[in-house]
Amino acid sequence: MRSDDDRLSQIFAALANSTRRAILARLVEGEATVNELAEPFNMSLPAISKHIKVLERAGLITQVQKAQYRPCTIDVTPLQELSKWTEQYRHIWEASFERMDDYINLLKNKEQTNE
Amino acid sequence: MRSDDDRLSQIFAALANSTRRAILARLVEGEATVNELAEPFNMSLPAISKHIKVLERAGLITQVQKAQYRPCTIDVTPLQELSKWTEQYRHIWEASFERMDDYINLLKNKEQTNE
Repeated sequence: MRSDDDRLSQIFAALANSTRRAILARLVEGEATVNELAEPFNMSLPAISKHIKVLERAGLITQVQKAQYRPCTIDVTPLQELSKWTEQYRHIWEASFERMDDYINLLKNKEQTNE
Repeated sequence: MRSDDDRLSQIFAALANSTRRAILARLVEGEATVNELAEPFNMSLPAISKHIKVLERAGLITQVQKAQYRPCTIDVTPLQELSKWTEQYRHIWEASFERMDDYINLLKNKEQTNE
């Protein structure tokens, strides 16, 4: 079994490519076959299949057999995990916004005193 | 100039490694020199320096000369960009929570009707 750490690394690596992020954005609009995905990206089927495999291994895409074809569907669970990971750093950028606010207020008060 | 897409890929790639994520977590507690970072991770200086360079190129770490040493400081701006990117998918997982809630309520109502 892969550790949480390995899993997170796999998700980050899968997203470190603009074509793979564009595939995900496309799948938000609805499921699509590999052929349908290959067309707008102007890529060969083997090339797009490789990207889909990376996304599938990271759990971002599922492919379910349906009659004659296997459409790709987005699974946002890994994105939810990323969101949780990023949230732990939110207090830092929010604190720096607050410091900036304090500084702006200080400048405003100084201006008013000088008027 | 790198495009936003390339920049996002670089940030994701920098975070696709558990040691680099651990370095960031350590830097939340305060700045640290390369030597101080190498110790807890039980890594050689060249190995840790390589990781720091990747984080620095992605804008997640800054190194500023201070008298005799150049401590590393965390910069959360790229994490804020990731957070924004992930947010565009939030409505999908929130929608699936709502559907789950609806289903649970349906089951509860059925139970009450059968009592």
